[in-house]
Amino acid sequence: MTVTLKDVATLAGVSVKTVSNVVNGYAFVKPENRRRVEEALAATGYRPNVGARNLRRGRTGFLALMVPELSIPYFGELAGLVITAAQKRGWSVLIEQTQGTRSRERETLSSLGPHLVDGALVHPEALEAADFPSPGEIPLVMLGEHAVDVPIDHVAIDNVLAAQTAVSHLASLGRTRIAAIGRNPARGTSSQRLAGYQAGLAAAGLSYSDSLVAPAEKWHRSVGAAAMRSLLGSASPPDAVFCFNDLLAIGAMRAVAELGLRVPEDVAIVGFDNNEESAFSLPSLTTIAPDKAALAEAAIDLVHRRITGDKALPAQDIQTPFALEVRESTRGR
Amino acid sequence: MTVTLKDVATLAGVSVKTVSNVVNGYAFVKPENRRRVEEALAATGYRPNVGARNLRRGRTGFLALMVPELSIPYFGELAGLVITAAQKRGWSVLIEQTQGTRSRERETLSSLGPHLVDGALVHPEALEAADFPSPGEIPLVMLGEHAVDVPIDHVAIDNVLAAQTAVSHLASLGRTRIAAIGRNPARGTSSQRLAGYQAGLAAAGLSYSDSLVAPAEKWHRSVGAAAMRSLLGSASPPDAVFCFNDLLAIGAMRAVAELGLRVPEDVAIVGFDNNEESAFSLPSLTTIAPDKAALAEAAIDLVHRRITGDKALPAQDIQTPFALEVRESTRGR
Repeated sequence: MTVTLKDVATLAGVSVKTVSNVVNGYAFVKPENRRRVEEALAATGYRPNVGARNLRRGRTGFLALMVPELSIPYFGELAGLVITAAQKRGWSVLIEQTQGTRSRERETLSSLGPHLVDGALVHPEALEAADFPSPGEIPLVMLGEHAVDVPIDHVAIDNVLAAQTAVSHLASLGRTRIAAIGRNPARGTSSQRLAGYQAGLAAAGLSYSDSLVAPAEKWHRSVGAAAMRSLLGSASPPDAVFCFNDLLAIGAMRAVAELGLRVPEDVAIVGFDNNEESAFSLPSLTTIAPDKAALAEAAIDLVHRRITGDKALPAQDIQTPFALEVRESTRGR
Repeated sequence: MTVTLKDVATLAGVSVKTVSNVVNGYAFVKPENRRRVEEALAATGYRPNVGARNLRRGRTGFLALMVPELSIPYFGELAGLVITAAQKRGWSVLIEQTQGTRSRERETLSSLGPHLVDGALVHPEALEAADFPSPGEIPLVMLGEHAVDVPIDHVAIDNVLAAQTAVSHLASLGRTRIAAIGRNPARGTSSQRLAGYQAGLAAAGLSYSDSLVAPAEKWHRSVGAAAMRSLLGSASPPDAVFCFNDLLAIGAMRAVAELGLRVPEDVAIVGFDNNEESAFSLPSLTTIAPDKAALAEAAIDLVHRRITGDKALPAQDIQTPFALEVRESTRGR
């Protein structure tokens, strides 16, 4: 049975006009009314008649989301939040995977036209400025690191500060040989986290050594395990490691255990992303926790503003919050 | 720069016609040629000019994929494989999340029309037979358990046999008090895995006890941890547990460790899904490993056959393979 705006309004105890304002994403709705409408929308499973509405507005009703790989938990979690946020505005989301290669990212960008989607959220790993389409095509919002200087809306956390926070935490525990796993010059995120790692060392009065920085082309668990084995096999092994994502850290913890060493007693470990698995690993993982829901909401808000008319607005650069989540991998049990 | 069919053909060392046959999903291509073309397609990042082709064929170029939650690793991994398989046939994939509730699943199904998508892959948790649209609408392929009797194409592993295999493995280790975590009468998957659990007990000559079966509405890590604490706090705790998915098992392992007990010495644990995290947990998790890539390919093949004409074919029921992946949570280190 189809749920109507009126059903939602009755359940929420507000007018149909108020429900319509929330569904259409207008800003001026009292927070209390917005909350009641959103609860009623969720409870009834209301979906706007997207086809008819889009036709009326000359829209496709689709947004594209470009990510490297959905099987990476960070992207699976983020994509889920983006779909939820987009659905509230009546958009369905097309997902394109690029494996993080420049050629696939470029192909994907060039395939997205206004006949296909109303806008796109892109999480590039390797794109360069020249790869971006000229403004005036579909609205684009870039997620994640801002390695390239293009006048495009952008939502991310402060990656440099976040990485510095992770390293300062390890230094505050008295660790002096703090390694990093995840260097990859082709990835903007890696460069920013490496810069934050170096800033964290400097702030703690520790010197930087290339031998303590392990490369990682893919940020997968197996790569983290291999990098950790290599670091622990060196002449002067680390007493702490900052991993550029949680998957590398989970792999690193596995390698430490296989060598009969203990986390955090022998090696303290910090990750980045706060994947759900990191709260349940043994030991649980201290990590940088970006507010992924805030990031998804901000990105959908931005693309919505562009699509509904704010075309003259200069490119926005929005920073969403992060926190250091301290768990057993640095604190112990 | 746009890659053409000719570029792909040159790289693969085959004719343009052969590349076209692979891209368009025709069956009669020599396996060796298909392999070379697929490698060349991957290397060049070729994408068909979908817009023009779809217009010519009266298609939208979209498939929908309906899953409960992308943040659940099984669905993140499966969605990634589905997108990859669909892309080879020139389709982009819209993802709809339902949270596994019947109302959201029903709404999603009813919103998918031929104006929107060419076909849909649906992974229902709670749908009943009456919720399915009449045949003749868009082609549907059902993934996962086949709890409802509807004449719709269906791809899944044998959930009953897989669960029985897991329980037989635990019994073969000499465990006699084998518990289960994940009972949820509203979910077809749960009913099938429970039936397999009971069959496994019976085959080993062990008796079934309701007190050893823990309910779990959501199959999340925190729920598995709570269920395990409850089982271990009972008068006669289990010496082994079969968890209906890996997330429940990861949570259960965490609860065992927090109580100062050991896996597998005190409690052996088996999961289901073979999420990537399960190979790296401490201990690594013995689990039922469905061939997710085979499942995604079979589903895309089926929907492609329906769309390209095999409309009169009776509903297909395809079983894809699974394996028991024995790791430290039952074998020890």
